[in-house]
Amino acid sequence: MKAVRFYGREDVRVEDIEEPQVRPGTVKIRPAFNGICGSDLHLYHDGPMPPAPTSDSPHPLSGETLPVVLGHEFSGVVEELGDGVEGLAVGDHVVVEPLMVDGTCPACQKGAYNLCEQMGFIGISGRGGGLSEHIVVEERWVHPVGDMPLDQAAMIEPLSVALHSVKHAQAKAGQTAVVGGAGPIGLLVAAVLKAFGVKTIVSEVSKIRRETAASTGVADVVVDPANEDLKSVVLAETNGAGADLAFDAAGVGVVVNQLLEVLGGNGRLEIVAIHSKPIELNIVAQLTMQDRQIGSSIGYANDHAEAIELVRSGKIDLQPFITSRIRPDEIVEKGFERLITNKDSEVKILVEMS
Amino acid sequence: MKAVRFYGREDVRVEDIEEPQVRPGTVKIRPAFNGICGSDLHLYHDGPMPPAPTSDSPHPLSGETLPVVLGHEFSGVVEELGDGVEGLAVGDHVVVEPLMVDGTCPACQKGAYNLCEQMGFIGISGRGGGLSEHIVVEERWVHPVGDMPLDQAAMIEPLSVALHSVKHAQAKAGQTAVVGGAGPIGLLVAAVLKAFGVKTIVSEVSKIRRETAASTGVADVVVDPANEDLKSVVLAETNGAGADLAFDAAGVGVVVNQLLEVLGGNGRLEIVAIHSKPIELNIVAQLTMQDRQIGSSIGYANDHAEAIELVRSGKIDLQPFITSRIRPDEIVEKGFERLITNKDSEVKILVEMS
Repeated sequence: MKAVRFYGREDVRVEDIEEPQVRPGTVKIRPAFNGICGSDLHLYHDGPMPPAPTSDSPHPLSGETLPVVLGHEFSGVVEELGDGVEGLAVGDHVVVEPLMVDGTCPACQKGAYNLCEQMGFIGISGRGGGLSEHIVVEERWVHPVGDMPLDQAAMIEPLSVALHSVKHAQAKAGQTAVVGGAGPIGLLVAAVLKAFGVKTIVSEVSKIRRETAASTGVADVVVDPANEDLKSVVLAETNGAGADLAFDAAGVGVVVNQLLEVLGGNGRLEIVAIHSKPIELNIVAQLTMQDRQIGSSIGYANDHAEAIELVRSGKIDLQPFITSRIRPDEIVEKGFERLITNKDSEVKILVEMS
Repeated sequence: MKAVRFYGREDVRVEDIEEPQVRPGTVKIRPAFNGICGSDLHLYHDGPMPPAPTSDSPHPLSGETLPVVLGHEFSGVVEELGDGVEGLAVGDHVVVEPLMVDGTCPACQKGAYNLCEQMGFIGISGRGGGLSEHIVVEERWVHPVGDMPLDQAAMIEPLSVALHSVKHAQAKAGQTAVVGGAGPIGLLVAAVLKAFGVKTIVSEVSKIRRETAASTGVADVVVDPANEDLKSVVLAETNGAGADLAFDAAGVGVVVNQLLEVLGGNGRLEIVAIHSKPIELNIVAQLTMQDRQIGSSIGYANDHAEAIELVRSGKIDLQPFITSRIRPDEIVEKGFERLITNKDSEVKILVEMS
């Protein structure tokens, strides 16, 4: 079967590989759509880093080295069920929660498997990926999506990241949140906040991204923090009280400081972006004197079913976030490269498998 | 009447001043016991800093300049009620929540008056203090303590600080918490945690303070982090899961790092100490990859009644924390100086007013 495999930095190949066979407790799926994620982009441009294996150091759970099949944000159709699989039928539309976990570590035992000590991703760490004609996945990671369109379903994975973050922040209806950064994750965080009944103020320097935040309906207010005074806007929108919540979807220290500045008393900053550098915090002024808190979370655990329901119930419409559709053999030129050159206008590029 | 007044750095005088008169809506109280607090110590040794006024810059709410009467942790007996005061009677044992707040700012309007923009303290910012023969206080700040001994009642104020912090951290029965630092606030935080059904591990470098944490019963486990591996102890006490909560009652960056290190997945570090220097945080490793959070709070708001109930119900015994009793004219030598020279063996020094 055809598959898109990652060999190393700037080395992705479409190849013929052996078709995987269903085993007891697993589900064979024909992938339909794959979203391209920021982590795919990093792998392609910067080369393998954990949780990806290298060519001589296998991932501890998959035991596989490079090459690995790519694709961890994907939807598909059930083709075959292994012995003992229940609650699914051939033909079902599904998404895959693309994980591999140890299962015995304290985090896994508590159900917080996103914090697993050995965590790996299908589509990055081995065990196949969505960018292939077939994949076989353990039953526990397969979630039926009912009649949800399969293109939108490919975004359930990043939506689950956003949902996990919003729940970690303990967001409640009636609150006001500032979202710093309107890339794919910032937009999805804003979408979840809106679905939860939270008023959203999206702060973003890129004009195109601000327009997307406004046109998709996820931002009640958009602000250009380079040319407007974010704090004044937030105070005006909250009767002088400041925001209840702020989400850092940018991942830079200056945005952290900006967002702490606009929080009201007992406000919470939630960091959903990945910070590559340490930050300096003035505990007394930025937290203590206003009873504030900072949280941050990674991935998702037991969030997919709720993410699916948010879309099926109509509370979130993922359609506007799909900005391009490409073929598997176009993934470098129209995928990885376009996400750099057209960074602000693209939200989610989907690879259509058939 | 006699009062202990603060004139500036290392200048405290016991003087005769005019006796305050009760007004409508206020309560006249004869103070019984005053605790000496770390902030009194700072004022005495370092000189006035906000919320204390200086000799030419008055506090915005009290309008007073130096000198001010000291004493903000105090209990007493109601002597006289102003017109319109209800729910109190002459002879009642009470404590004073020693605040002055603006009342109109967004924080006050939300009931979070500890975050008031202009916040002042009775006994620091003006309006008298507990270190005097009489004080007149607005009704809203006076809390009856029933038959609680008046010496213990003088510790309701710092207990309210500890309670506010533990509630801010959302502590729940069955959790395990590490308390870093066993000074007066660390011990009271541990006492509240125990009352909430939380298992406590107290980490403290001073042998005398560790002994106090053990002998007062607030620590289930005590650790010397300089000579024992705190992380190993915490993992052993939590079946490898790490702590649910950690409280920084030390106020130094190294303790913050140490406590983040022993938190498990979704753990929370609560900072109750005042940090005088910024700290550096590695967001990804210290928060993100373990779904963690950091919170910090200041003072108390609507916490006194619950703090009083914790003591009256027998869940917290404040008696063991009273380590010395002195007279008002001994406050410098046996109070401020002794808290420096005997820092580890003293927990709470009470000034007895009669």
